[in-house]
Formats: sequence, structure tokens, C-alpha cells
Amino acid sequence: MSSFEMILAAAQRLQGHARVTPMLSSPFLNEIAGRRVLVKAECLQHTGSFKFRGGWAAISALSEAEKSRGVLAYSSGNHAQGVAAAAKAHGVTAVILMPADAPSLKIENTRALGAEVVLYDRAGGEDRSAIGQALSQKRGLTLIKPYDEPEVIAGQGSVGLEIAEQARAEGVSDADVLTCCGGGGLTSGVALALEATAPGLRVRPAEPERFDDVTRSLASGQIESNEEISGSICDAILTPAPGVLTFPVLQRLCGPGLVVTEEEALRAMALAFLRLKIVLEPGGAVALAAALFHGDQIEGDAVIAVATGGNVDAALFREAISSYA
Amino acid sequence: MSSFEMILAAAQRLQGHARVTPMLSSPFLNEIAGRRVLVKAECLQHTGSFKFRGGWAAISALSEAEKSRGVLAYSSGNHAQGVAAAAKAHGVTAVILMPADAPSLKIENTRALGAEVVLYDRAGGEDRSAIGQALSQKRGLTLIKPYDEPEVIAGQGSVGLEIAEQARAEGVSDADVLTCCGGGGLTSGVALALEATAPGLRVRPAEPERFDDVTRSLASGQIESNEEISGSICDAILTPAPGVLTFPVLQRLCGPGLVVTEEEALRAMALAFLRLKIVLEPGGAVALAAALFHGDQIEGDAVIAVATGGNVDAALFREAISSYA
Repeated sequence: MSSFEMILAAAQRLQGHARVTPMLSSPFLNEIAGRRVLVKAECLQHTGSFKFRGGWAAISALSEAEKSRGVLAYSSGNHAQGVAAAAKAHGVTAVILMPADAPSLKIENTRALGAEVVLYDRAGGEDRSAIGQALSQKRGLTLIKPYDEPEVIAGQGSVGLEIAEQARAEGVSDADVLTCCGGGGLTSGVALALEATAPGLRVRPAEPERFDDVTRSLASGQIESNEEISGSICDAILTPAPGVLTFPVLQRLCGPGLVVTEEEALRAMALAFLRLKIVLEPGGAVALAAALFHGDQIEGDAVIAVATGGNVDAALFREAISSYA
Repeated sequence: MSSFEMILAAAQRLQGHARVTPMLSSPFLNEIAGRRVLVKAECLQHTGSFKFRGGWAAISALSEAEKSRGVLAYSSGNHAQGVAAAAKAHGVTAVILMPADAPSLKIENTRALGAEVVLYDRAGGEDRSAIGQALSQKRGLTLIKPYDEPEVIAGQGSVGLEIAEQARAEGVSDADVLTCCGGGGLTSGVALALEATAPGLRVRPAEPERFDDVTRSLASGQIESNEEISGSICDAILTPAPGVLTFPVLQRLCGPGLVVTEEEALRAMALAFLRLKIVLEPGGAVALAAALFHGDQIEGDAVIAVATGGNVDAALFREAISSYA
């Protein structure tokens, strides 16, 4: 499993390659939330989401022999793009297994970033793990899982190192840090980083309704699954269940989860457009939505929300700002 | 007039108050432009534009007696918000004179930031300078002009200091730096900063068609005026003519201007949405539009575009992304 030392090592390999994303804020958002809101804008990361960090960390940790054979990833889209871009920069072949119902922008971008895209039918119940393992064995590709992968978790943890430093610069030492949570890669990585560097910052996963597996797992003390695995606009963070590597970390370090509606995610996208001038996708806006609209479940004078991604189709973004901006 | 020393002093006063905005990029934009494109995302500055820097620099330079009487600004909107927010943080009263046809978002925001807003009829030919001076004398307010003001120019120049450092980190030492140019406050400040810190980076103003006063002035060697002063979606940078303080600096340090169409500005907004995940207003997108669509007038392997602001009404933003994203 990942450790703080692995996060530091991953951050070192990421230096000069991943962007240090800014911590944004607006008095208008503070007023809505009733407390200071700091927004870690990972939508501004290369490929439009924090996933570039994990992709880079994993690929840069491969042996030369592994690099020469190539990598495989399966992803609803953001991990795909992150791995594709990182692979290209390393001169490594990337094969990406994507659900056919992923946003077309994510599929197109992944192809344009030089990866070979293989589509599968998520709604029809095809098992991506089985397809991925078969492909991986057949072609000698190294599988880079989206979250249950120590080097990926370590890469995402670099977000936590930056949050610790930026929160300190803002005078915030005691606050909840809300993450948009799918399988828990980012959430566990950030939690490990903050445990070592800013123990007053407590990570809490935020999820969309009907896909609140992590929140329910934290409450029950065991891994709980979602009934569905597709059918939400928050496509970036729809995973069947918390990972076997990530869940023990979440359980040890995270506070209770927060659950938001799809409408709240769209509303947070509109406010991020209006007040922060950033583009968020629904799945990248759930932490901000929780900070803004579920303040009754949060304590303290400040809250930090990680805005994890911005890869949204124009039509859905128009819907968000025309309804709520 | 402003000097490099004044810019350094302003940058010092801004430290910890203005955001160091990121330098963004995307392989997709590089491909369109045919060279590397670096985008200085000043839309992520407090109040959604670089104008916060000049407002803060000017107000922080006032005497205690001046601060106690308050300040006055006239602006199509971004300078208004910048001065309002900086004044509020200093506990200084701000009266802002705004054209009645400015985007409603900018007028609302300026009021919400605590300023007293006085509207005037720009299209009907009311002279904002005359109204401003009368108000200023009557109430003892210190006028903070939007661009022909040494401390304002010095504050905007801090963008140039950051560009020099960030371009160096990207390995870019020789490139055109395109600015969205109205009266020339940002453009002259950045030019002075780069002259001292990165002499291989040459500033070039970008303007919307029909409002290309600076481009024509640079070509003719004397101050030329626009025939109109309203009626473009690029409202942020519609000024009658280059300033008397700014023009000599532009003339001494800038390369030829670049002129883009309104459609190109909308197209650049859509690409910034899609590829950089930032929100730009038309007037804040003209430099990026020039970088992307007028590459035949640019030399070198890289170009830097300053994305100056993101205060755009939702309806216009929807139009941009529905037509071009």
C-alpha cells in the first residue's frame, strides 16, 4: 500500500510535469456557505483533472522493460486521459478501455492524446476488469488501475501536499477537506499526505446520491457497493465500491461522507463558472456542492473543497449555467 | 510615470493579496496555433480579472488622509470590481461610475463588493471623465483612473514579473507576449516589467476590430482614436484612445498590434472552456484569439497570451460554447 514516503517520491517525479494548481476563493461563495471556502482547482491540471498525477506517478515508476511493452488503463474518462498524456510524454504505448457511454469529449481526447481506445458496454454489464486483464495478458501491457494501485494513490496524494502548503499560506490549519470520491484513490492519497503534513485538516469524501458507496461503507465499517454503476451525470466518480487498498485508509483517516444531489452538483458548476471562472464537470463539483449546500454537516470557520475535474460536454455545461447562473 | 522600481514596490504590496495566477497550456491549442501557446490565466485573479492588481496597488499607495476620504473609479466593469474589492479590504469607501450598458453581472458584483455604483449613459455620449471629476471634487474622493495612472500601471506590471518567471520555468526566453489591450495600463506595465526581467519577451497588444486604436496608434506613431466607444461584446477593452502616460511606453517597447474579429474572440472563449477549463469574457480572450488564429503575424516557437478576464454573462458564454465548442 501507499505510504507518505511514496507520496513524497511521486511528488518529486511529478515536479515540473504536473501543475501546482491554485487555491481559489470568492467572497460570494463564502456568503453562500456561511464560512470561508477554499477551492483546490485540479480541473486546471493537465488533461483537465487530477488523474494526470496518478498516471504520471505510475508510469514514471515502471521499469524500462515494462515501459517498452506499454500500459493499459480502464476508465470512465479522466484516468484515461491522464494515463494517455503521461504515457505519451514518456514515449510509452497506452491502450485505454473506456465505457461506450462515457462523454464523447473524453473518448475523443483520449484518442487525440495518442492512446488506442477500446470501448466496452458498461450499461450492458460487461466486466471491464475481465476485459482489461485479458488484454493485458495478451499484449504484455502493464495494467494501471484507476485507484486501487499504490503508485496511483501516491501520485494523487501530491494534491494533499499542495493543499497543506496552500492552506497554511491562507492561515487555515483546522478544516474539513472535501474530495469528490469514486474509488477513493484521490481521497486516500490526500488523507495520507495530510496526516503527515497538516493533521488539523481532515478529509471527507463527497459523493452523488445513488452512488454513495464510500459514505455507506464508512458508516457501516465494511465495503458496501452501489446498486447501479452508470446513469448519473457525475460519470467521473461512478465506481462499484471503495477499493480494497483505499478503503482501510479511508476508514482510518476520513470523517463521515457527504452526499449531494445532481441538481446541487449542477448548481455548484454554475457558481464555479460565475465566481471562480473555472469549468467543472458534475463529478468534479460534488465536493464544492457539499461545501456550499451541506454546511450543516460541516464544522469550523473554513472548508476546503477539491474541484477534481472539468471534462464536461458543452451541452451539459450550458444546461448548468442556463439553469443556475 | 511608472518605472520598474514602482512595479517591484507594487508587487511587494500585492504579495499575499493578489493571486499568482497559473500559466496554462494544452497540446490541442498548440496544434491549432502551430506553436507552443502559454496562457497566463488572469481570469483566475480575485474579482475575475487582472484589474484587482492595479486597484490594490493604487489604494495601498494612498496616504491615510486620502484613504479616510475614499476613492472614485470609472470603469466598464473590471476596474470597478478590482477597485471595489481592494477598497473593501483596505476599509476605504469606493464610489464607482459605470456605464449603464455594462454587463449586469459586473454592475451587480461591484455593488455586492460594497461599492456605491453611479451609472452614466455611455451610448448617449455622457463624458465619464467630466462626471468623475465633478464627483471627486464634491466629495473629496481620490480618483483612481483605469489606466493612465502610474500606480495602477505599476500594479498591472506585476503580471509581467510573474510571466518572466513562469516563462523561464517553461524554458521560453524568446517569444511574443500578447495582451488584451484597452487603454494600455496592463500592456505598458507588463512591457516595463519584461524589459527589465526578460528582454527576449516582446509585448504586443491585441484588440477587437473597430476598436483597434492602439494598433493604429503604434502604426502611425501618434495617438489615434476609435470612432465608436461602445457596441462590441469585448466591452472590457473599449477605450477611446491609448493613454497619454501609456502610449509612450507602448511606442518604445511594444511590437505591432494584432486585431481579431468578435467571432474569433468567441471561438477562443470556447477553446479556453474546452482545453484549459477556464472562463473568459470576449475582451479577455482577444490575445488568445490572436495567438490561435493570427499565427501568420507571429514569429517563434512559442507565444504567450494573457487571458485578462472572465466576467461574462451566462447567456453570452452559452452562445460561445454552443457555436464553437
